[in-house]
Parts: sequence; structure tokens; C-alpha cells
Amino acid sequence: MASFDLAQQPHRRFNPLTGEWLLVSPHRALRPWQGQQEAPDRTQRPTHDPTCYLCPGNTRANGEVNPAYEGTFVFDNDFAALTPDAPAGTLEMGGLLRAEAESGVGRVICFSPRHDLTLPEMSTPEIRRVVDVWAAQFAELGARPDINYVQIFENKGAVMGCSNPHPHGQIWAQRTVPGDPAKETEQQATYFEQHGRTLLSAYLEIELREQTRVVLQNEHWVVLVPFWAAWPFETLVLPRRPVQDVTQLTDAERDAFADAIRRLTIRYDNLFQTSFPYSAGLHQRPTDGQPHPEWHLHMHFFPPLLRSATVRKFMVGYELLANPQRDITPEYAAQQLREQSEVHYKQAEA
Amino acid sequence: MASFDLAQQPHRRFNPLTGEWLLVSPHRALRPWQGQQEAPDRTQRPTHDPTCYLCPGNTRANGEVNPAYEGTFVFDNDFAALTPDAPAGTLEMGGLLRAEAESGVGRVICFSPRHDLTLPEMSTPEIRRVVDVWAAQFAELGARPDINYVQIFENKGAVMGCSNPHPHGQIWAQRTVPGDPAKETEQQATYFEQHGRTLLSAYLEIELREQTRVVLQNEHWVVLVPFWAAWPFETLVLPRRPVQDVTQLTDAERDAFADAIRRLTIRYDNLFQTSFPYSAGLHQRPTDGQPHPEWHLHMHFFPPLLRSATVRKFMVGYELLANPQRDITPEYAAQQLREQSEVHYKQAEA
Ligand SMILES: O=P(O)(O)O[C@H]1O[C@H](CO)[C@@H](O)[C@H](O)[C@H]1O
Ligand SMILES: O=P(O)(O)O[C@H]1O[C@H](CO)[C@@H](O)[C@H](O)[C@H]1O
Repeated sequence: MASFDLAQQPHRRFNPLTGEWLLVSPHRALRPWQGQQEAPDRTQRPTHDPTCYLCPGNTRANGEVNPAYEGTFVFDNDFAALTPDAPAGTLEMGGLLRAEAESGVGRVICFSPRHDLTLPEMSTPEIRRVVDVWAAQFAELGARPDINYVQIFENKGAVMGCSNPHPHGQIWAQRTVPGDPAKETEQQATYFEQHGRTLLSAYLEIELREQTRVVLQNEHWVVLVPFWAAWPFETLVLPRRPVQDVTQLTDAERDAFADAIRRLTIRYDNLFQTSFPYSAGLHQRPTDGQPHPEWHLHMHFFPPLLRSATVRKFMVGYELLANPQRDITPEYAAQQLREQSEVHYKQAEA
Repeated sequence: MASFDLAQQPHRRFNPLTGEWLLVSPHRALRPWQGQQEAPDRTQRPTHDPTCYLCPGNTRANGEVNPAYEGTFVFDNDFAALTPDAPAGTLEMGGLLRAEAESGVGRVICFSPRHDLTLPEMSTPEIRRVVDVWAAQFAELGARPDINYVQIFENKGAVMGCSNPHPHGQIWAQRTVPGDPAKETEQQATYFEQHGRTLLSAYLEIELREQTRVVLQNEHWVVLVPFWAAWPFETLVLPRRPVQDVTQLTDAERDAFADAIRRLTIRYDNLFQTSFPYSAGLHQRPTDGQPHPEWHLHMHFFPPLLRSATVRKFMVGYELLANPQRDITPEYAAQQLREQSEVHYKQAEA
């Protein structure tokens, strides 16, 4: 009998952060694709778009006028999924129909006044300003008694449901801890109780020894394709020091965070020579007043592209009914990302 | 303080089948949409396409020739994600990197020789033939000692990653029980132990009393938008009698299953006057040799469209990092589906 070969053979991998499994089918990467193609984003945009509701000085749908901001700009989402004033209440029928009122805050963070930029096209100091906004927002919202979890994220690209190319992210902060952070809290707490250190510290140690899934490093951060990555080019951006949230990062760690984000997103853009779409976001401790020593801050990048600027991975059928499945291995994806230059292709062309 | 209003106010709902929560933001349905638009599928296709690898008599990628089939046709997937011959094996590092070999079978089920049809355009006896194939396949694969779970599903439409419009579904059958059916097994088992009947029997009783989420019924089946639906027009197709798998359905129950599928998918097509995309699939007992009295067979439909043939729901950012979120309520979705005719719009036009 041949030996177990992760690079060739169908197998399952365990995600210790969520406690769930995924199916890996490496041999399947070469099947022909005749399905839907995405439109690659190679548009050249103006630095200021008078019809954009995020550009400085423009008027939004609710009549408010954006200031002439020069760095970042944060405002309450005009169409927030969560609102602070929701009256409390619950519904229960037979233990099977269960609902409860939810309250919270939705905000938009403009990363730059420039309509035509994206994170990989911004400088490290400009990205550092965004990191500082994340920290200030987490501190402000997390201190509120009615907020127990703060989700900071970015949807980039039309294929990720982003309706405006102006560089921006969002915050959804709420009373309860949603499903995924709750699972990660539980898994990390169990590990911390048993081992006296964070799960992701121990994991990072293994990955730094193995090197096969590491994409890039700096003094304070490591970017890797996690062993259990579900999306083709999914990555985890991990601080070497186990901090619970972004406010605890030192000045040097914040600069290094910006550096890691910049270098990763440049590699992403270079991979298929396109403005690489993704959803990305921070996972941090719940702001429920508990100390959460088990929590190790990290950032997930979930990009949908699989083979080119136009062919994506579909999480459908089997994935929606059974569990996530991937074709190319995390090791192969990491190697592809390692091979990219850290000079953005647009600059290399210029 | 105003009272708790599910139709107007942000809230969370619990999914008793998976034990997870979702966020509902009913007030958000009216925000403007300037993002990606899908191409509605209104193509008129030929009854036989010489370039289609699923049509009768055509040659597939691996050189095999399809028979001149007149009803359904099942074959082993030429690019299966699972293969039966995978050697066993495991990998483990520090309890954090965990993988194990997985084996299984992938099959394709052609629903009809007609390239231009879809389930809602087929007759009830033609759909009944598909139900019989599901039963035969479940019986055959489920009996194998190396198969402990059989996932039968259909991806319909380019937006759901379907690369060939010829009406067909798939089977992925494997050694282990994947995540979602494992969760449903656990939740149903807990309920069954406590109450001596299936969770979905008790749930169905509540929904038949409430009526607000019921879409259609016949003697043996009920189609409803579950209280915890995540996708805008998600439905659950539920037999009144708690059977564990499709082989246990009587002749009359199989006819009625075909009738329910036909009437539901016609309503779907009529909703936005388009060939309505979805992923759909059966959830049934694991085939692990246990009796599983807790299991209540059901079929999930997960359609992505939200507002029209071109505007879909994106499960991105918050949904990938926190938990699923929906805008329109399940009650509103059920009402929309109830208002549709059961005569297909193409026939009504003809
Ligand atoms: O098997 P197909 O139709 O080629 O592929 C489609 O269905 C699979 C099972 O849901 C998914 O893993 C693929 O992403 C999707 O494109
Ligand atoms: O808030 P936006 O950008 O309008 O909307 C986008 O992000 C949200 C949060 O991930 C999703 O719920 C929406 O489906 C998506 O289109």
C-alpha cells in the first residue's frame, strides 16, 4: 500500500480554531473549467469620483456631507444591519422557534481619500493609519456595556459583494458574540487551559519550523496559509506575541502589521495580475469584560479566486450541505504566494 | 418601550438543526444596490447539444461514450473529489496539525436526456424517476462498508458554480460523516432522547399551526421557509412521516415528493421570471450501520437570489467571519413564494 501523501491524495484536515473539518481533493485541481467567469478588475479609476458616496466632500444618501478628510474617515453606516436602539425581546415556541432582539452599531471606515487606491497601493504609513483607526474603534466600541463583540472587516471587489471600489472597510459591533468568534473562543480556551499558552503560539512554532506554509515574515508578524485553509489562497496574519486585541499592539508592532498587510496584498494582486478580491477581518477577544487570556489576535483573508483572475472557487452544493472542500493544497498555495514579487505589478509596469 | 417585532427589528434566530445562530436585519432590505449584477439565465437551449458531455450518445473527456439513455443516467464522476482506492493514513503534529486520508465515490446523475430542461420544466413522473434514482443510489452506496455518509445534491445555474446547464445532480459518498450532517445528527439525537419523537416532526407541527412560513403542501410533504433560513428564499422540503432515508418512502410518498419539488421549483422560476439558481440536496441518516431513529429525512434548497434575477445575496465579510446574516425575513420570503403561480412562466407565455 502506498503511503499517505497530502499533496496527491484526498484527505480531511482539522481546523483547531473552529473544531471543524474540511475535505481536500488535491488531484482535482486539473479538471477543465467551463463555468462562470468573473470580470477581472483592471479599471483605471479617477482619484476623486463625484458620484462616490465615500469620497471627501461628497453628499451621502441620507443628505450628510463627508468632510474634506485627508487620511481616514469613519462614520455610522447609513444602512447598518445593527442599530443601537433595538428594544429587547425574545420569542420561543416549543424550544424550536427561538429568536431574540439584537442591538449594535455599524460603521464604515474609509482607508484613504483617494478613490483609485486599494490597500496594496497605499504606503506602509498610510496602512498604519488604518491600523490605528481599528485600535481606536475597538477601544471605543469595546468599552460600551451594550457591545460584547466588535467585528472589523473589509469586502474587496465586486465578486465579494462590495458595491463601491473606494477603499473602505466596515465594523459590525453587537451585544452577543457571533458564531465563529464564539467557536474560536471555546477552542482557544480549551487549549489554553490544557497547555498554559495560546493555541496560535503553539501553532506558529510548528509552522516556523515547517516553513512550507509560511508566505512572509517580519520582526513582529508572520503570514501563512493555515494547514486547514478552506479558500484557495486563504491566509492567516499572526502576531508573534499573543495579544488579545489590536489596542495592545506596540508602536513597532503596528508598523509591522501594516508592513505585513501591504506585502501580502501586493503578492495577492501580483498572483493573477488583478486587483485581488477578498473578504478579510480581525478576530479579537470578545469585549464582554472577561480577561480572555486564551485569545490570540489574528486576521483572516478569504479570497475567492482559484486559478486565474476570472476563475473562482464556488462554495456551493457539497460545501453548503456537508462541509468546505478545496482542490489545490494549502502548501501549493503558500508556494505560489511566496514566488510573487513584493513590487506591485502596476508599479513594475510603470 | 415598543414590543419585540420580528418583521421590523434586528434580531437573532436559532437553528435547532445545527445549533447555530443567524442575524436578521429586516429593516435593511431597502438599501440601494450598486454592486455586482448576475446575468439572468433566459437562454433558449437545444434539446440535444453535441458539445455537452452529459447528452445521450456524446463522448466524455475520458473517452467514454454516454448511452442513448431515455430517462435518467448515472455514471462515476470523471473528476471526482473522492476516490475509493485512497490508502489509509493520518498526520498529527502537536495536536494542531491533523489530517487523515479520506475515501469515497463521486457520481453524476443526469435527470433527463433533454439538454434544454430543468426540474421545474419536467413532468411529475419524470421527477419521480429522479427520486427513484436517489433511492437506488442511496441503497447501493449506503450498503458499502467503506461508505458512512451519502450526500446527494444539485448545483443549478452558473452563479452556483454549475458548469453545464444539462439537468443533473451529483453524489459525493464517503467514509466519514461531514460537518453539517454530523451537527444535524447530534441535534436531532438530543431532541429525540428528550422527547421520544423527531425534532422535525415537532417543528412541522408548529409550522402547520402557524402557517406563516408554509409555501405549499400535499398529502405527504410540506415545503416551508424555515424559521432560521439563512439564504433569502431558502426552503425545507419535509415529509410528514419521519423516515430516515429516501429508500423508506412509499410509492405514494415518492410521487408526492416529485410533486412538491415540481411545484416549488416552478414557484422559484416564476418569482423573478428566470431559471432560478440554487444548491439543493438531501440530508439523510449516516449509513454507518446505526439505526438513527432521530433522523428525519429532508431536502434543503439554498438559492442565492435576493431581489431580482440579477441581484443576489453575498455571504461575505461579516458572514464569513462572524455568522450568517439575512435582510428580508423568512415570513416575507414565504409570502412571496406563496403568491406565485404553479404554472411555469414559460408555459403561461406560450
Ligand atoms: O463538481 P463540479 O460541478 O465541477 O463543481 C461544483 O460543485 C462542487 C460541489 O459542490 C464544488 O466543490 C465546486 O466548487 C463547484 O464548482
Ligand atoms: O454592507 P454592504 O457592503 O452593503 O454589503 C456587503 O457586506 C455585508 C457584510 O459582509 C453583507 O451582508 C452583504 O451581503 C454584502 O453585499
